[in-house]
Amino acid sequence: MKHLIEMGQQARTASRRLATLGTDQKNEALNAIAGEIDAQADLILGENTKDITAAREKGLSEALLDRLLLTEERVAALAADTRRVAELHDPVGTEIESRPLPNGMRLSRRRIPIGVLGVIYEARPNVTIDIAALALKTGNAVILRGGSETLRSNLALVRAIRAGLETCGLPLDAVQYIENPDRGLVRELLRLDKYVDMIIPRGGTALQRLCQEEGTIPVITGGIGICHIFVDESADLDRAPEIIENAKVQRPSVCNALDTLLVHRASAAEVLPRVAERLAKSNVELRATPEAMEILQAGGQSDNVVLAGEEDFDQEWLGLTMGIKIVAGLDEAIDHIHAHSTEHTESILTRDWANANRFLDEINSAAVFVNASTRFNDGGQFGLGAEVAVSTQKLHARGPMGLEALTTYKWIGLGNGQIRA
Amino acid sequence: MKHLIEMGQQARTASRRLATLGTDQKNEALNAIAGEIDAQADLILGENTKDITAAREKGLSEALLDRLLLTEERVAALAADTRRVAELHDPVGTEIESRPLPNGMRLSRRRIPIGVLGVIYEARPNVTIDIAALALKTGNAVILRGGSETLRSNLALVRAIRAGLETCGLPLDAVQYIENPDRGLVRELLRLDKYVDMIIPRGGTALQRLCQEEGTIPVITGGIGICHIFVDESADLDRAPEIIENAKVQRPSVCNALDTLLVHRASAAEVLPRVAERLAKSNVELRATPEAMEILQAGGQSDNVVLAGEEDFDQEWLGLTMGIKIVAGLDEAIDHIHAHSTEHTESILTRDWANANRFLDEINSAAVFVNASTRFNDGGQFGLGAEVAVSTQKLHARGPMGLEALTTYKWIGLGNGQIRA
Repeated sequence: MKHLIEMGQQARTASRRLATLGTDQKNEALNAIAGEIDAQADLILGENTKDITAAREKGLSEALLDRLLLTEERVAALAADTRRVAELHDPVGTEIESRPLPNGMRLSRRRIPIGVLGVIYEARPNVTIDIAALALKTGNAVILRGGSETLRSNLALVRAIRAGLETCGLPLDAVQYIENPDRGLVRELLRLDKYVDMIIPRGGTALQRLCQEEGTIPVITGGIGICHIFVDESADLDRAPEIIENAKVQRPSVCNALDTLLVHRASAAEVLPRVAERLAKSNVELRATPEAMEILQAGGQSDNVVLAGEEDFDQEWLGLTMGIKIVAGLDEAIDHIHAHSTEHTESILTRDWANANRFLDEINSAAVFVNASTRFNDGGQFGLGAEVAVSTQKLHARGPMGLEALTTYKWIGLGNGQIRA
Repeated sequence: MKHLIEMGQQARTASRRLATLGTDQKNEALNAIAGEIDAQADLILGENTKDITAAREKGLSEALLDRLLLTEERVAALAADTRRVAELHDPVGTEIESRPLPNGMRLSRRRIPIGVLGVIYEARPNVTIDIAALALKTGNAVILRGGSETLRSNLALVRAIRAGLETCGLPLDAVQYIENPDRGLVRELLRLDKYVDMIIPRGGTALQRLCQEEGTIPVITGGIGICHIFVDESADLDRAPEIIENAKVQRPSVCNALDTLLVHRASAAEVLPRVAERLAKSNVELRATPEAMEILQAGGQSDNVVLAGEEDFDQEWLGLTMGIKIVAGLDEAIDHIHAHSTEHTESILTRDWANANRFLDEINSAAVFVNASTRFNDGGQFGLGAEVAVSTQKLHARGPMGLEALTTYKWIGLGNGQIRA
């Protein structure tokens, strides 16, 4: 069992080599890895079966088991995803700006890999391939630590990745995996700042908090969304129910799904029963303030409604539940969002120019929409091609993080003997 | 004495207001603050005299006392600096890109303030004004914690700032200062992640390490430079001594000053004695490897030279000392830099196209120069107008941080009813 410091040193050495690779070399490696995933599919599935058996014995729910499960189709999709990353634009080497300084020196900023990424994740084994592919595409080495439930699957996938690296003559230490289940190693990884430049936790609040609390390495936090839609007085009330349904129901288990609906008092009587009727078809449970409850009862739509407690407006539901609150207008909506949002995604439905602009100006969440579903806050929807994570922090990257978020830059000054006066 | 949580809440509330201000309003406030600094100069100088007297009694060196000292001219310069910040371009509100998505939604990224900054600094009271001005210009609230030696001066400056804010009807809590000298409050500030978005430590390694170790808030580390110049075989040896002298001597106490000179073996006999002769005029002490020492002795330039210990190549000298090492060529130079650099600033002196490009490609320090002094790694020299800090970390910002580094962005999606398929 390798010591973590040794893994860090080897990752750093590998990262130096990766940083000098051209796009063609990196793409070749990604395609070789995809080939190995295909070729080793039976091995991977065999290891996954062992994981699933053990997890079932431990009594994991069928829903969770499905998240751990690999099938022939899913393994083929992993290979296809890896090939797709090869096709993405490589941001490394791009010069952000280039200009002559008054003294004749040419100054530019060049995008470079970050170096070594530490990624801690839970459950789904596809993260192993996703992250390794995105890291390699951007010339970064990566140290992975997945959940114990999929250890065998993850190790099989890492073997395929390293086989692909080997056929291309690239350093195997570009992708390393912490096998030892000792949880103390996670804490150790979080303090390996001499060798690791960035920690990406892919998991819930507890994991993210652990990384912030225990770590000495910059952490990308995000992926926790208490998302709001505000239906303004002037909203198109014929269109609103469909947008709200889409935001809530189209994929309720994800971070950009709608959690709380805020409705202008003047629109409530007309729009709320229509929203409730629509959501009832998908069995959405509504947690309504007393005023909203009254309106729903008056509109004959109170079957799936319970009275909300104050804590219901601080919930990321990740399922078929939604809070509803009546507000006096835009000011109260903005105040509510400031008090309860995780600054992930908010949307206003309005036909009022001034209110739309005030919402855009005063709400500073990672993504702010006018007249659209919250579900659009997504790397794929935004045309980024890939999504490393959805950041809700303020530094480095916000919202969907594409390949560019796995790069930093260096200043380059091309002189001909300049000295400073 | 206000509790830190209360300060955080008030800073957050103030930051919401600041984020909505137009550039004119922010500039008006900066000019009002400058006016108050001028008007209150006698008060500020009186408080500074008390600080200086107390510091002298504590036995601080004259050099350190000079760093704490304010004079009429220095106070006038603080006012002038504040007016100069008003004249800088305001990055807030700029949209980084704007494009239609295939579904007709218009997507853009808009620069917004980060929110609340926590700044911990030592010694010089001018940091109080510098940071407050840059924070206000970018719409950020700030919680300041300066060194105890200049507490009275800092508080006088903060009073002037708040007087300026008051005349413009802006929230005084935009700029707050932690008066209580209890060191435990620094640790508390570092964990105030609910209200503070970014920590900027302006001080030495110990302070930066404290912020990384104890904090839960993203930290901007930097300002520690072990900087290298490599004199390649093909360097213009007539020009090299002047560039090296400039990098070492022009302002030896700063982070982008030269620390270690690496010389290609083939150039050493010709260039080293000339470098030593030139640096001797400024009383630079050279710490040379045995081979370099021999060459200097042979060239009759060994008066200011002592044999280097291995630890001398891990020193940020911040003064008139410099390490010298002979290397076999570019490979060894790059390896030495990878092993010893803090990734702040490195420069190669060469006339060889391939070597220049290899150095630019393989050295990933925050600033990398060809044929220029290391002293150019500076916000002013790079035309940024202001410098918040010089970052040597990989996330968010690298090298000189201008106003843009005090902003983040939000995604904005302007729809007309879009739902996700």
